Amino acid sequence: MIRVLVWNEGRHEQRDESVAKLYPDGIHGAISAGIAENLGADVHLRTALLDDPEHGLTEETLAGTDVLTWWGHAAHEEVSDEVVRRVQRHVLSGMGLLVLHSGHFSKIFRTLMGTTCSLRWRNADDRELVWTVDPSHPIAAGIPNPIVIDRQEMYGEFFDIPAPDELVFISSFTGGEVFRGGCTFRRGNGKIFYFSPGDQEYPVYHHPDVRRVIANGVRWAAPVTRVEPSLQRTEPV
Amino acid sequence: MIRVLVWNEGRHEQRDESVAKLYPDGIHGAISAGIAENLGADVHLRTALLDDPEHGLTEETLAGTDVLTWWGHAAHEEVSDEVVRRVQRHVLSGMGLLVLHSGHFSKIFRTLMGTTCSLRWRNADDRELVWTVDPSHPIAAGIPNPIVIDRQEMYGEFFDIPAPDELVFISSFTGGEVFRGGCTFRRGNGKIFYFSPGDQEYPVYHHPDVRRVIANGVRWAAPVTRVEPSLQRTEPV
Amino acid sequence: MIRVLVWNEGRHEQRDESVAKLYPDGIHGAISAGIAENLGADVHLRTALLDDPEHGLTEETLAGTDVLTWWGHAAHEEVSDEVVRRVQRHVLSGMGLLVLHSGHFSKIFRTLMGTTCSLRWRNADDRELVWTVDPSHPIAAGIPNPIVIDRQEMYGEFFDIPAPDELVFISSFTGGEVFRGGCTFRRGNGKIFYFSPGDQEYPVYHHPDVRRVIANGVRWAAPVTRVEPSLQRTEPV
Amino acid sequence: MIRVLVWNEGRHEQRDESVAKLYPDGIHGAISAGIAENLGADVHLRTALLDDPEHGLTEETLAGTDVLTWWGHAAHEEVSDEVVRRVQRHVLSGMGLLVLHSGHFSKIFRTLMGTTCSLRWRNADDRELVWTVDPSHPIAAGIPNPIVIDRQEMYGEFFDIPAPDELVFISSFTGGEVFRGGCTFRRGNGKIFYFSPGDQEYPVYHHPDVRRVIANGVRWAAPVTRVEPSLQRTEPV
Repeated sequence: MIRVLVWNEGRHEQRDESVAKLYPDGIHGAISAGIAENLGADVHLRTALLDDPEHGLTEETLAGTDVLTWWGHAAHEEVSDEVVRRVQRHVLSGMGLLVLHSGHFSKIFRTLMGTTCSLRWRNADDRELVWTVDPSHPIAAGIPNPIVIDRQEMYGEFFDIPAPDELVFISSFTGGEVFRGGCTFRRGNGKIFYFSPGDQEYPVYHHPDVRRVIANGVRWAAPVTRVEPSLQRTEPV
Repeated sequence: MIRVLVWNEGRHEQRDESVAKLYPDGIHGAISAGIAENLGADVHLRTALLDDPEHGLTEETLAGTDVLTWWGHAAHEEVSDEVVRRVQRHVLSGMGLLVLHSGHFSKIFRTLMGTTCSLRWRNADDRELVWTVDPSHPIAAGIPNPIVIDRQEMYGEFFDIPAPDELVFISSFTGGEVFRGGCTFRRGNGKIFYFSPGDQEYPVYHHPDVRRVIANGVRWAAPVTRVEPSLQRTEPV
Repeated sequence: MIRVLVWNEGRHEQRDESVAKLYPDGIHGAISAGIAENLGADVHLRTALLDDPEHGLTEETLAGTDVLTWWGHAAHEEVSDEVVRRVQRHVLSGMGLLVLHSGHFSKIFRTLMGTTCSLRWRNADDRELVWTVDPSHPIAAGIPNPIVIDRQEMYGEFFDIPAPDELVFISSFTGGEVFRGGCTFRRGNGKIFYFSPGDQEYPVYHHPDVRRVIANGVRWAAPVTRVEPSLQRTEPV
Repeated sequence: MIRVLVWNEGRHEQRDESVAKLYPDGIHGAISAGIAENLGADVHLRTALLDDPEHGLTEETLAGTDVLTWWGHAAHEEVSDEVVRRVQRHVLSGMGLLVLHSGHFSKIFRTLMGTTCSLRWRNADDRELVWTVDPSHPIAAGIPNPIVIDRQEMYGEFFDIPAPDELVFISSFTGGEVFRGGCTFRRGNGKIFYFSPGDQEYPVYHHPDVRRVIANGVRWAAPVTRVEPSLQRTEPV
C-alpha cells in the first residue's frame, strides 16, 4: 500500500472559468483519479491545497506520506519557506516526490535541484510528442512511443536542471523545440520524478497515457528506507 | 599539437555522382577542412580510407594518432574484425574517437557500446534543429542554440545506446522525432563523441556550426593518458 | 513470478576438493538457495552449467528466462561465441542479467561493456567491507552498512568498465584498495547488475547479506519489456 | 589566463597555534602556492577571507573571477545568505567552483547540491589512499594511483550528495571506510569539483599530488560561457 498525497496550488480553478470547466474536481482531482485508475487498491490517496492550514503539509501528514505529487503555477511564492524545508527534509529521509509541469519553478524543486530551473516556453497550442528514450525503465512500462498530446504549452531547452540521473522521456513540439520532460533524480534517500506534460489550460491530466506515466512514477518513487541523513562521528570498522 | 586521423569509407563518392558533387574532396576532405578551419596550427591532420591497405589503420598509424574520426555507411561489414579489435584497443588505451552520423552502425561503435545501436530513420528532407542541453560542455563552446540544418536525414529514438556519460545535444526533426545526437562516452582511457548530423546526400559537413562542433569534439577527445588497462596482481599498499 | 536461471561454469567444484567442500551443491546451488531464501514463491528457479548441451542456454531456455545470473572463472574461453551472441540478444531485448564476481572477465560481460573489464586482484584473505552509497536503491533494501565479509579475494581499481548508470556499493579491502563492486548498467531493454563479492575459495555465497543483495538484484533486473531493438524506417508523426 | 579567487574562512589560523604553524601563510596561502606551482603564468591568483568586507565576494570581484576555490569549517553559518545567493548566481552563469574538504558543509555547497551533504567522520590519524577511477579525466592527469596521504581526517560514506556527474577519485582509510572524495557536478553553466583531502590539522595542502589535483581542477572548471539562465518566452523556430 503506497500512501500518496496529491498537492495542488488550487488557485486557477477558483479564478479561471476555463480551468474550472476542464477540471471540475480540481487539477488534484484529475491527478488523483488517474492514479486510482491505474493503481487501484495499491494506493491510499489524499489531497492537500495551498490554502489548507500549513498548506496541508504538516509534519504529521508528511510522516504518513510515501509519495507526494506537486502541482503549482501562479502562487509559488506563497508557499512558506518553513514548509519547503520540511518537505525537503522528508524527501531526503526517503519520501518520494513527483513534480509536475509548472512545478519546475516551485520552491521545493528549485531547492532540491540547486539551479534556476528556468526554461523556454510558449502558450500557443503546440502538439507535444513524448518519446521514450529508456524503454527498460519502470516509469515507461506500457507507454506508447510516442505519447501524442494534441494541444499543450511548449516547454523547451535549455532547461536549467542538473543532469538527470535517468532521462526517461524527451518531448518535441510543433515549433521545433525539444525538452527533457521525464527525468529522475535521487536526493538523500528520496526519489524524485519530474514530468512536464500537464497544464491548466489543456485537458492533459485526462490523457490516459499521461495518467499512466504518473501512476508508474508513484510506484517507482515509493520509498525503500526512511532515515534522515546526518553527520556522524564513527569508530573504525 | 593534436594528431588527427580522419577515416572515411569512401564508397559513396565513387558510386554516386550526387555525392561526388557535394563532396568533391570526399567526405573526409570536408571533415578535414572543417577541423583545419577551426583548430589550424593546433592539429596535424591525416586521412585514411577503407580501401587503403589495412584500411589505413595499421598499428603504427594508430600509435601516432591522438584522435580518430570515423565516417562509414554502405560497407560497415567490409571492415576487418582484426582492425576493429586494434582500433578498440587503442581507444581503451587512450586514443580519442569521434563517430559521425551513420557510423552509429559501424563495427567499432557497436563493439564499444555493446548494444545494437539501431534507430528510426527516414530520408525525406527533414529540417534538423540541434539543441544544446549542456551549455557548459567544451563541445558546445561557441555553438548557437539551436543549430539549424535545413535538409537532413532523420534519425529518431529509440536509439539503442547505453545512457551517455554526457548528453550535449538533442535534435528535433520536421516529422516530430527527437534524437540524442550529441553524446559522450568514456571507455577505458579513451573518450568517445558520437555526433549525428552529416549525410552523404546533404551538404551537412559544409555547415560552419557542424564543423565547429566536430573541431570542439576533437579537442575534447584528445588523450590525457595512453596506457592499456590490464589485469594485475598487486600487493597491499 | 520471476523466472530465474542460475548459470555456473561448474569446473572448480569438480577439480578442487576445497571448493566441493565449501559448495557441496555447487556454486549454483548456493546462489539458488540464497535467492529462494529471500524471494520464495516470487521466483521460479532453474540452473544450467557450462557442460550442459549448448551450455544450457538454448534459445528456448532463454526465451523462458526473466533473469539470468552468471558465475564463471576458469573456463571463460570455452563459452561458445554463438551462445554469447544469443545471450546478448536476449539481454538487449529485456532479459535481466546478474554478473557475479569473476564473471567480470566473462565473454558476455566484456561484450556488453565494450571494455577490457580488467582490474587489480590478490588472493590473500583480505577482509572486504561493502559500503552502500545509494541507500534509496532497491538493491540496497535491508542491507547493513557496511556488509562485513571476513575473508575474500581482493578486487581493486582501476576496474575498466564504463561509468555505471548507478553505483550502489563500493568495497574496501584490508590492503587499502577500493572497488566499485555493486554497479548497474542498462543495455537495450535489459538491466544488468554486476556484484563483486563471491569466490570459489571463500564461503561468500553462504553470507546472508550477500544472498540478500543478489535476491534484490534479481527482483530489480526483472524485465519491463521484451522487444528486440531494430533499425526501422518510419513515417512522420 | 584563468582568474582564480582562493577563498578561506581563515579562523583556525588565528585561533589554533598548531594550524598557524602548519600554514604560516594561511590555508589560502598554501592552496594558492599549489596552484601557482602547477599553472604558473596560466593563472592570475587572488585571495579573499570571511572577515573581508562582504567576505571579499563582492559583485565586482565575482564578475572578474573564472574559478573560485572554497575552504571553510568552523564558521559556515557566518557566511551571509545574500553572499551565498550571489555566489550561486555566478556559478549558474558559468563561474567554476572548487569545494575543498570541510567545505562540504558550507552553505554554498549545500545550496547547489540540494541535500544535507552530511557524512561520517573521525579525526584519528587515518592514512588516506586516493584511488583514480576515471583515468581519462583531465583532473586525474599526472596523478599517481593511489595518492598516499599519511595522516588525515577520515570522511566516510554515506556522503549525502546527488550522484556525481563524474566520479574521479574514491578514497579508503585505515579504519576501512570509503569515500567519494573527487566528484564533479555541472549546475547551470558552471562546473563544480568537490575534492575531500585537506584538513587544518594535517599538512595536506603541502602534498604535491593534492596540489596538482587542485590545479587540474581549476583548469577543468574554467568557464566556457558566462550567461545567466533565465525564463524566456520564445517563438517557434
